[in-house]
Amino acid sequence: MTVQNSSPAYSLLITNELAQTRDFLSKQLQSPDDRLSPFIDYISGLQGKMLRASVLLLSSRLFGGITDIHIKIAAVVEMIHAATLLHDDVIDDGCRRRHHATANNLWGANFAVLLGDYLLSRAFLAAAPLQRNDINQILAETAATICQGEMLQNTCSGDFALTEGQYLDIIEKKTAVFFANCAYLGATISGADENACSGLYDFGLNLGLAFQIIDDLIDIAATETETGKTGGRDFSNKILTLPVIFALGRLSPAGKKELTALFTAQTPPIDRILSILDSVKGIDFAKSQAVQYRQKALQALDRFGSHPSAGALKELISCATQLPI
Amino acid sequence: MTVQNSSPAYSLLITNELAQTRDFLSKQLQSPDDRLSPFIDYISGLQGKMLRASVLLLSSRLFGGITDIHIKIAAVVEMIHAATLLHDDVIDDGCRRRHHATANNLWGANFAVLLGDYLLSRAFLAAAPLQRNDINQILAETAATICQGEMLQNTCSGDFALTEGQYLDIIEKKTAVFFANCAYLGATISGADENACSGLYDFGLNLGLAFQIIDDLIDIAATETETGKTGGRDFSNKILTLPVIFALGRLSPAGKKELTALFTAQTPPIDRILSILDSVKGIDFAKSQAVQYRQKALQALDRFGSHPSAGALKELISCATQLPI
Repeated sequence: MTVQNSSPAYSLLITNELAQTRDFLSKQLQSPDDRLSPFIDYISGLQGKMLRASVLLLSSRLFGGITDIHIKIAAVVEMIHAATLLHDDVIDDGCRRRHHATANNLWGANFAVLLGDYLLSRAFLAAAPLQRNDINQILAETAATICQGEMLQNTCSGDFALTEGQYLDIIEKKTAVFFANCAYLGATISGADENACSGLYDFGLNLGLAFQIIDDLIDIAATETETGKTGGRDFSNKILTLPVIFALGRLSPAGKKELTALFTAQTPPIDRILSILDSVKGIDFAKSQAVQYRQKALQALDRFGSHPSAGALKELISCATQLPI
Repeated sequence: MTVQNSSPAYSLLITNELAQTRDFLSKQLQSPDDRLSPFIDYISGLQGKMLRASVLLLSSRLFGGITDIHIKIAAVVEMIHAATLLHDDVIDDGCRRRHHATANNLWGANFAVLLGDYLLSRAFLAAAPLQRNDINQILAETAATICQGEMLQNTCSGDFALTEGQYLDIIEKKTAVFFANCAYLGATISGADENACSGLYDFGLNLGLAFQIIDDLIDIAATETETGKTGGRDFSNKILTLPVIFALGRLSPAGKKELTALFTAQTPPIDRILSILDSVKGIDFAKSQAVQYRQKALQALDRFGSHPSAGALKELISCATQLPI
């Protein structure tokens, strides 16, 4: 197996294991029926950066070798992630993801809902034979927590009184707990003690918070060409993210009124919203918060000193939390 | 615990166990967050006939007592069922279910998708601590098979060349395998031998086939007042069911042309479609097929002679496969 030039530096230590993870994932996603092959093959072909699998594998490597169970659970977390992306795209009405048309765009929202359900069920099916109920429980808890976060986000859509604390609670549930549990799973499967596992959880949680704050900033700031997915989704769906919440707390009554009015427009004007957010340094504030969580994630790894896997995880943090310009 | 007048006869043997199943189910559905309580409480309050739980409990009772694991898995299968109903209603755009507004009708399709995902994840979470990987595997396989059936149905929508065999394959996957696995789970958790478990699977499969053929007939023939859910959904969604497939094979070219044209109308005229189906005895054919599968389900129970649970399962069959007039 040769390392592709495009492989991020953090993955060099786990090149073979990531390849094995992809192989296992592809086997799980072999279509059970010729008529469904085009759909399942398409999903199978859309493998992303495998950040969550990498977090799991590198976390496990801190405590010894990577086993067959690690590889399989790394594939399972990527399947759960893929299932949530399919349903996210239905909910946000997103057209592009990973530089390809989304499933809902290609085959309609209904089919994408079913495909997501199928993937989630297959993820649990892949985990069941490993005879590890502790793992199954964490996986099911993770999936339920993600849904909880997404439901809260949905109920808070258009709520201009949303606080920073409520926002953080939502992104913790919908994103950060997943990263935290990937790191925890890697460690616990390797037999790390509870204290070490909890440290890894802490690393993952802070990484996840930084990741989501930045993902929200990317949604605002970047174009589809750069990110490969539809931008401005949060505005269209009246989802308040950190720069907006910060701005609403700082703007004059007139500014606040204008911002809320822009949000309720049929097609919210991104440039004007950005200029309002910038006027009170809302974007800068969100960036500074992301940097703080990134710092906490890095600190959680300090205890592992110069362990190569800790170094790789630090590279992963940098890679996954790059601030948009 | 007093037996309500409305309790079906088959449930009398398992009144206490069904109550325990409901209790466990309610505990699983306690909202993790006050803001989500209205939604989760609503779903928790919409408990239906608990047919699948009853199949599981009565099947287990054929081989001994009903244990704590039976109760919990009976609740889990009802949670999986509830999750599939939530997504079915999104996909069919159904407005009414169990005489109440559907979740998608009340809170929008997006929220209903998330609520279904949450329920499915909670179902796997409820099953995980039971330390039975064999059960977890069957549950995950069941959920995946249901999705497979639903995806096939979706891809075959509007396909007027659909054969009877393909229709049966779809309803086996989307409905019958679930009943079959409920019966199988009841037996296997009770320690029944593989031959007996397989006999129970056979009973459930045939019950499920009869049930779905009749459910499709009810969609055509009955009104919402009688069934508590939106009727004519299959026509609106261009889903071909048994009477239609039979009729398409028997009608003159002109009749066939009219029927396909009616299906592609914005609002398919149910009365005219019914009259065409009746003209070639399409409804009668579907009824006769349902009766055949019902008969096979009854026969699969013959080996249990006069065992009270076999009698109750036979009552359940009658109850669940009542033909519409």
